[in-house]
Amino acid sequence: MSYSSKLLQEAVDAFSLLPGVGKKSALRMAMHLINKDKDEMNNAFVKPIDKLIERIKFCKTCHHLADQDTCTICMERANRATTICVVESIRDVMAIEETGQYNGLYHVLGGVISPLDGISADQLNIESLLMRTRASDISEVILAISPTVEGDTTIYYISKKLAALGIKVSLLARGISFGGELEYTDELTLGRSIVTRTEYKVNQL
Amino acid sequence: MSYSSKLLQEAVDAFSLLPGVGKKSALRMAMHLINKDKDEMNNAFVKPIDKLIERIKFCKTCHHLADQDTCTICMERANRATTICVVESIRDVMAIEETGQYNGLYHVLGGVISPLDGISADQLNIESLLMRTRASDISEVILAISPTVEGDTTIYYISKKLAALGIKVSLLARGISFGGELEYTDELTLGRSIVTRTEYKVNQL
Repeated sequence: MSYSSKLLQEAVDAFSLLPGVGKKSALRMAMHLINKDKDEMNNAFVKPIDKLIERIKFCKTCHHLADQDTCTICMERANRATTICVVESIRDVMAIEETGQYNGLYHVLGGVISPLDGISADQLNIESLLMRTRASDISEVILAISPTVEGDTTIYYISKKLAALGIKVSLLARGISFGGELEYTDELTLGRSIVTRTEYKVNQL
Repeated sequence: MSYSSKLLQEAVDAFSLLPGVGKKSALRMAMHLINKDKDEMNNAFVKPIDKLIERIKFCKTCHHLADQDTCTICMERANRATTICVVESIRDVMAIEETGQYNGLYHVLGGVISPLDGISADQLNIESLLMRTRASDISEVILAISPTVEGDTTIYYISKKLAALGIKVSLLARGISFGGELEYTDELTLGRSIVTRTEYKVNQL
């Protein structure tokens, strides 16, 4: 495409970095910004994104997104919650929060154990999970991890560690579809699977 | 959606302003930026878009996008070109440039005459077009305007003004498209293309 403007060209390249955005969509997005009021677009579009990139943090307790050192979930629930829900990613926290069925704490692993992708247990936030369960009066850990091969490996690994600490471990009810991604599961199924979570015993395997 | 982060919430709202982007895609885009290196994303994403909004101008001659006061097309071609191609929007300039078949100047109207939408002739860049044709040695004006009711009204209006100045006016050829199926071409186009058929000479090929 011939843009005859270096500024436009560079903005189109920037928008193309976004997932699911090709050159044509990127051009449409850039042209949309040009056609609006300069100050309005700066305040409504550029500033919020700049702020997100500059200021977003990860909760030092649960590794979820946070505006300060501790995320709002940990701040609100740390005193009364006795369960930790272990998830792969931040978006899984959002998906579970969206169901409105869970009122405890979270712990974001940052992935699953996957030797093929070179991800081992010590690259995930597993040690900090064990520390948390040792330090506080957590009675149950829910492993809300995608039911894939890698997810199951991770579940096995973590539950063995937790069993040694005498912590009750439960899994999401297998109402969720096998091989599916957690973040794309519909609210009803995901909500039900938290309510009907089943206890996980290592020696059953 | 529960984001549990005001920064994320605001960035998702910002991305949702873009055309064709819903809340889910906006979240995906925001999460994409978070997962990358802060400085890299600032340089590769925020800065180019900020620069575009802050610095982009419109060519004072043809109203196309420009990094300076005059666009690159006007700068490169003003001395030798004798035609002006009149289009509705900046994206039409890009589309025609993309064909590689035209090497003259452009003039962006900024829309078409549309009484129903409250757009009259004096809200478009028509006066500046007439000024240009008066001042320079332009011999032909091509009206590359969409063949809609509003487009035809605009063509009629402009061509009358230009005829008074003794400037040759031409339109884009109308007919069936290359690679198009004859049976799916609309009646009006097909009818017109029979009436305005062109002679086919084998030895020219």
